[in-house]
Amino acid sequence: MPNELEIIARLRARAHATDGVRVGIGDDAAVLQTGGGRDLLACSDLMTEGVHFRREWSPPRLLGRKALAVTLSDIAAMGGVARYAMMSVALPRALSAAFIEALFDGMLAYAETNGVAIIGGDTSSSMDSLFIDTIALGECDAGRAVRRNGARAGDVIYVTGALGGAASGLLLLEHGYRFADNLNDATNDEDARSRARTQVMLKHLMPGPHLAFGRAIGEHGLATAMIDLSDGLSTDLAHVVDESHCGAIVRAEALPIAGAVRLLAGELKTEPLRLALHGGEEYELLFTVRPEHHARIAELSSELNVPITAIGEIITGSGLQLERNGAPDVLKPSGYEHHI
Amino acid sequence: MPNELEIIARLRARAHATDGVRVGIGDDAAVLQTGGGRDLLACSDLMTEGVHFRREWSPPRLLGRKALAVTLSDIAAMGGVARYAMMSVALPRALSAAFIEALFDGMLAYAETNGVAIIGGDTSSSMDSLFIDTIALGECDAGRAVRRNGARAGDVIYVTGALGGAASGLLLLEHGYRFADNLNDATNDEDARSRARTQVMLKHLMPGPHLAFGRAIGEHGLATAMIDLSDGLSTDLAHVVDESHCGAIVRAEALPIAGAVRLLAGELKTEPLRLALHGGEEYELLFTVRPEHHARIAELSSELNVPITAIGEIITGSGLQLERNGAPDVLKPSGYEHHI
Repeated sequence: MPNELEIIARLRARAHATDGVRVGIGDDAAVLQTGGGRDLLACSDLMTEGVHFRREWSPPRLLGRKALAVTLSDIAAMGGVARYAMMSVALPRALSAAFIEALFDGMLAYAETNGVAIIGGDTSSSMDSLFIDTIALGECDAGRAVRRNGARAGDVIYVTGALGGAASGLLLLEHGYRFADNLNDATNDEDARSRARTQVMLKHLMPGPHLAFGRAIGEHGLATAMIDLSDGLSTDLAHVVDESHCGAIVRAEALPIAGAVRLLAGELKTEPLRLALHGGEEYELLFTVRPEHHARIAELSSELNVPITAIGEIITGSGLQLERNGAPDVLKPSGYEHHI
Repeated sequence: MPNELEIIARLRARAHATDGVRVGIGDDAAVLQTGGGRDLLACSDLMTEGVHFRREWSPPRLLGRKALAVTLSDIAAMGGVARYAMMSVALPRALSAAFIEALFDGMLAYAETNGVAIIGGDTSSSMDSLFIDTIALGECDAGRAVRRNGARAGDVIYVTGALGGAASGLLLLEHGYRFADNLNDATNDEDARSRARTQVMLKHLMPGPHLAFGRAIGEHGLATAMIDLSDGLSTDLAHVVDESHCGAIVRAEALPIAGAVRLLAGELKTEPLRLALHGGEEYELLFTVRPEHHARIAELSSELNVPITAIGEIITGSGLQLERNGAPDVLKPSGYEHHI
């Protein structure tokens, strides 16, 4: 079968520009004119059992929460505020009522916390797998959505938070660790490692997109481009430079690798740098900033208590480079494909 | 597991009224204020392999078309016009490129024909089943969406088109008939029955919601309530009377049973009336009209070339009655559950 990028490219080629569509297929969310001073943002995100998650290691409450969180993350990555959500869910007949209730509870609680109204959706049974499609509607000031295509040479590349955790958490889950088991372990001798394991599994199972920060970046017009890290930094940054017709240099030593990832490097048998560069589902924000806005971004980061790190620069040309120990090398986008 | 209605009831109870939400969970589409003179309509519709369709009998082009058509039908049932759509699709790894291309082609062609822009969506692989969630965004004049809850005693109940075809088509498919096989049969001796089989299978595989008619009813304010027939007339009319706090009487002799359904009654081994009352997925419109608007509805029907039939009246009280040979009896909502 054709891969996701081929399908999207084909759809994008055929989905002609239409009245009212400022941004169609190919960004974190579509941007629609509604006539007032605000634009409408719309996006959907699919979570498929066996591809994006396994039921055996996903507490249902966290699963419902994550399904919504990753979709709201797309609205934040446009610099917008999420207002409404819908959820279409296909439920295997064998699912317990308790599982389903916890799934919706997790979603509803996250919606309430973030001021998002659940306005609809659809449910059906499913022959085998659990499917969750979450749709978000949001808004931003007209013409102010932060796209992927505005980065320019000289911009500094920032990321929020710390990297590598979600991919590490997924590896642990694949190795048989479980979130709940691990909580019980937390009192034994190996406290620091145990806490680190919990932390990275939670980063995978319970991502915390920076909704207020993304929105503020958009409202203050502080970024030239923005994307959320869902496929992995290298792949997501490649989307930005491809859409912006420029290149980027990333400094390995500057990457904010999560402490827990460094601590667990031995047992994960993977280089922390590799996890930070290519690990998916971080749901941190990556954005590019003109030099004159550095001070304001630093203020915003401090005000909203969202750590940010400058990891490199946008340059002329194309493609990605990784500078390590002062020497640049080609950085191939190789974000983790979903491969559970 | 809890059934769909229980899940919806639970969600609806927890999804509190929020600023900007005119209509939330529980109608064909949500209605949102956008600030201008127009309201935004939003809905999603899930099609799950083995529940809503079988791949073996669904030509992929028709499947993509239907996934979008049934969602646009919900916008029409609110009296609105569909403007944008998104499609989230989980694709089994074994699907051929040709199948996927035809699936999206069918969807895109239907979107173009109906002036709908595809603005996004998501794709993923799937372990086993094909899963298609289609999201539609539409609009109507502010405060003019036609809800399910406005029917009043004395209103006449109308349906568009003819009934029973989609359920008959599904029965034939379950009995081993195939749409393509049948086309080849069309030259043999049994022409009328063969054409009837094609017609009802097409009604199931290629529903034709009355988008322009639904929109016009909304724009002219001609209906007090409206719903599309997706679960079966008895179930969908029950939604209207429950939401409107009234009852309804349906006249068996008035029901517009499709000619093909009567012709095939023998081989289908089911009473045509039963198929018309309870058969799902017709995607006809059911709407209720004040007596003073009969002439205008008749004009609109003629202008847009959409046949309509008065099938009964809204009455005080609650529940449904079926009048047959002059004698009323209780009509139990028993729309076909998806049961493929």
